Amino acid sequence: MPNYKLTLEYDGSSFQGWHQQKNGSSISEEILKTLSLILPLPVEQIYASGRTDSGVHAKAQIANFHYPQLIDCDALLLSISSILRGRVAVLAVELVPDDFHARFSAVGKVYTYQILNRPAPASYLRQQVWHVPQKLNLELMQLEAQSLIGEHDFTSFRAMNCEAKSAVKKIHQIDFELRDFLVIIRIEGTGFLKQMVRNIVGTLVDFGKGSAHLKDSSIKEILLKRDRRSAGQTAPAEGLFLERVIY
Amino acid sequence: MPNYKLTLEYDGSSFQGWHQQKNGSSISEEILKTLSLILPLPVEQIYASGRTDSGVHAKAQIANFHYPQLIDCDALLLSISSILRGRVAVLAVELVPDDFHARFSAVGKVYTYQILNRPAPASYLRQQVWHVPQKLNLELMQLEAQSLIGEHDFTSFRAMNCEAKSAVKKIHQIDFELRDFLVIIRIEGTGFLKQMVRNIVGTLVDFGKGSAHLKDSSIKEILLKRDRRSAGQTAPAEGLFLERVIY
Repeated sequence: MPNYKLTLEYDGSSFQGWHQQKNGSSISEEILKTLSLILPLPVEQIYASGRTDSGVHAKAQIANFHYPQLIDCDALLLSISSILRGRVAVLAVELVPDDFHARFSAVGKVYTYQILNRPAPASYLRQQVWHVPQKLNLELMQLEAQSLIGEHDFTSFRAMNCEAKSAVKKIHQIDFELRDFLVIIRIEGTGFLKQMVRNIVGTLVDFGKGSAHLKDSSIKEILLKRDRRSAGQTAPAEGLFLERVIY
Repeated sequence: MPNYKLTLEYDGSSFQGWHQQKNGSSISEEILKTLSLILPLPVEQIYASGRTDSGVHAKAQIANFHYPQLIDCDALLLSISSILRGRVAVLAVELVPDDFHARFSAVGKVYTYQILNRPAPASYLRQQVWHVPQKLNLELMQLEAQSLIGEHDFTSFRAMNCEAKSAVKKIHQIDFELRDFLVIIRIEGTGFLKQMVRNIVGTLVDFGKGSAHLKDSSIKEILLKRDRRSAGQTAPAEGLFLERVIY
């Protein structure tokens, strides 16, 4: 059956996350609903590279769905975008080989996280940053971040209710960029556990603030402890962007 | 009487512009209302470097007001920000010499304008960009922009109802920056007429799209005509940011 790949940019603050929720609208539901308005036959399932949490944005989330007929990809792109205008933008629609799967075919992902580091709160960026008023020690944060690079057991950085069988993941790179008051952290890895990026960023920020509970600790030690409680807080969803999925 | 200078960042989409309006809330009104909640004596007037239109954002708008007593500037900063949270962020409060006037003391201003140039509409950036789906000829736009630099009569680029006595202004610099699909145009000059930046950007975009009505025209000719109708469209407010005021 023909297999279609979607590249999606979305505003996480308009949805309750990728996956169907009891209350509120999810991105996957909205897209299935939109496809049912456009296509004559129903689409049962849509797969994403991963489920973004409520509030998390995507610059290029990848999804795929199977459909029994041939579709005009350009027309579909425009019609989905115009129905979900302002909340989801469809950047590309492509016919892909039958065995392509948005999640299982992925070999890596890139996330960015935006921290607004200044005393004054955010205004026009308020849905796209985490406001941290205390001056962060960025040098220490960058130094600690280096210990995350490589293959590790990330149990200390996954959500308590994460259901993945293995907590072993590989992080290729962590970069910091400064743009006025914005600190942008970019993390590239083979894959990520539930809330892993938010827990990493939250912990780095705790180091950057000089938080008492991490005073004699280090990322190296936290990794070895394999205990979520040894790490820092979970950074809020609104600062997080799924930047790119690598196949 | 002590004179206080405010540096303000705001989300233009939350207000009906800087100046008092009959319907909807203006930034100046909201700040005066907030000051009346914080300070024991009333503040009658607040002056800005200029009136931003409805929807226009500011990264560092400058305002000043007189107040008969000495104020704790740091405390005022935090209390205004917390009352107007998410819409206005106060970046600085300073006691300045009595003759400082946000508008009349200004010697220059910097604006940036964000264009999202791709077929797909905006999602999380929808309040901060102008979506132009047609591929723009940026080379031509940059070339035409060079003709704006220097001192000119900008009658062709001012709003029909602009009340300024002289239309002669000086533009120091126009830069283009590309960031993924974003085209960011930065304009620095001695001062700007009503809607001048939006009319300049709209006209440059008309050149970039190859619009028929400007086919045999040029910025140089449009300037010489001193007629608003010879220029292009007015770019929408939401892409515009007052970046900096120079004193």
